[in-house]
Amino acid sequence: MGDPAGIGGEIILKSLPNLGNRSIPVVIGDSNVINLAAKQLSDSKTPRFGNFKEGCTEGAEFIDLKLIEKVQFGISDPKYGEASYRYIVEALKLILAGEVSAIVTCPINKKSINSAGVKFIGHTELLAHYGGVTDYVMMMANRSMRVSLVTIHIPIKDVPQALSVEKILKTILITHNSLKTYFGLQSPHIKVCGLNPHAGEEGIMGDEEAMIHEAIRIARLLNADVEGPFPADTLFHRIDCDAYIAMYHDQGLIPVKTIDFSRTVNITLGLPFVRTSPGHGTGYDIAGKGIADPSSLIEAYRIAEKMIFNN
Amino acid sequence: MGDPAGIGGEIILKSLPNLGNRSIPVVIGDSNVINLAAKQLSDSKTPRFGNFKEGCTEGAEFIDLKLIEKVQFGISDPKYGEASYRYIVEALKLILAGEVSAIVTCPINKKSINSAGVKFIGHTELLAHYGGVTDYVMMMANRSMRVSLVTIHIPIKDVPQALSVEKILKTILITHNSLKTYFGLQSPHIKVCGLNPHAGEEGIMGDEEAMIHEAIRIARLLNADVEGPFPADTLFHRIDCDAYIAMYHDQGLIPVKTIDFSRTVNITLGLPFVRTSPGHGTGYDIAGKGIADPSSLIEAYRIAEKMIFNN
Repeated sequence: MGDPAGIGGEIILKSLPNLGNRSIPVVIGDSNVINLAAKQLSDSKTPRFGNFKEGCTEGAEFIDLKLIEKVQFGISDPKYGEASYRYIVEALKLILAGEVSAIVTCPINKKSINSAGVKFIGHTELLAHYGGVTDYVMMMANRSMRVSLVTIHIPIKDVPQALSVEKILKTILITHNSLKTYFGLQSPHIKVCGLNPHAGEEGIMGDEEAMIHEAIRIARLLNADVEGPFPADTLFHRIDCDAYIAMYHDQGLIPVKTIDFSRTVNITLGLPFVRTSPGHGTGYDIAGKGIADPSSLIEAYRIAEKMIFNN
Repeated sequence: MGDPAGIGGEIILKSLPNLGNRSIPVVIGDSNVINLAAKQLSDSKTPRFGNFKEGCTEGAEFIDLKLIEKVQFGISDPKYGEASYRYIVEALKLILAGEVSAIVTCPINKKSINSAGVKFIGHTELLAHYGGVTDYVMMMANRSMRVSLVTIHIPIKDVPQALSVEKILKTILITHNSLKTYFGLQSPHIKVCGLNPHAGEEGIMGDEEAMIHEAIRIARLLNADVEGPFPADTLFHRIDCDAYIAMYHDQGLIPVKTIDFSRTVNITLGLPFVRTSPGHGTGYDIAGKGIADPSSLIEAYRIAEKMIFNN
């Protein structure tokens, strides 16, 4: 459910009628939050769920952790951070026990989870830790394009020294393997961005492209169909590959979100399970108002479903 | 005409039937190049132009500098660099004498002009020099959005230290003034990107946003309608302002080119005259083959015309 004070409860309620063609959604959260969010919606019905533990197999199921009495939407609070964390841990328990097939996370608030003493930058890092992996990749995707990021939440000034042949190569290979394993692509075609304007223009504007060239060379030796580095500004309008590799956050997220913001989904590759998430944040400014757009959550669920069935 | 070995001649020929509703196009170049380019086109007619010096007032006019005997498309050569340079200087003479109203430049090759001993990074820098200005702004625009850049052709690693309150402020103000002067907007609305992911997220991921805040504060004191800094990844899909300000090349060029590549136009703001250019390069790989797309040049001319008439 993500942060109780965010739009998580509301977008779950709005999404449920559109989910579960090939699977059963299991919501992990707080019924007090979900019921309050329901009051803001025009149809204003108290939602009804099946009970996961009783093995309900039709419609959505609900695991009520009963951590929140009465939520105040739109504010950061350690108890909301603590609740966000407990929802995730519950989801992790179920997926590691093989009781669910994928995790779809609603947004959490960095400040809230940190103030609750949870020492992770975000969902992705937390899931990677409990999933037992250190090499994972953040991919953002919608129906137009997929983009994997080599670096994520670091300042621009730290990006050049954070890049290495090894890191770029791992991003390429994890993306390549995931496209084969989860997206039904036998020989995925990947295009890689340069770091600098015009991909450095033969060293005139930066030389980090040499690392990117080397990573691509090795990836090709390993039979990945990879090309680049290309100037990033003229690359994305073509949409002529199965995934792009971007060197930093905005380079990858600007094109994918500009093309189709509302259906952009965050996918963590390299985990021992399927995990997706909406591409947006907690929406504190609109939480509890009944106006949140569930498109990205619906799309996140749809993609998780496709990944499980590999088509 | 730009680089003789590029697609300049071809896209000019293809553009001419679509130009000049409200103005007379004057082509500055080489007839040997234009005629060779004409042979590759399906209709394959030798183009006919009026003569600028004789004061022809209908259709396109041509100033033949007779610098190139027989062009070899797709290769860099000092003599093509020299010719590119001479075309521009001729255009500058005419515009500074008040004989033409705007300059629309076709792409040049950096290597060719440098090997010819011309010490400018590109068209923009050259025109700024002869236009007598040091403060100018590169804007990329199409029918969906306009984006001005604070820094342009520098490596990513140099971007953070190249930013300053003064530089960001100048970019905002030149953009603001140009939108009023040339685009008929009384009170243009401008949105400014942060530098870092999530615009630094309150200093967690970089602190250069403090400079951007300060530049915006001063611009607002000067009555510019400016907001920001905003996270760049969630900004461009809205297209809810008259211009965006981006901190670096790819941050601004990725969204505008991803949205509508073929009609993206380069506009130099802050010069003492109107100057536009197609958003693409010389196209050496397709030069002389008759397959170049003239859309961006047509759009560059159309925007120059709108800027002259301020609507």
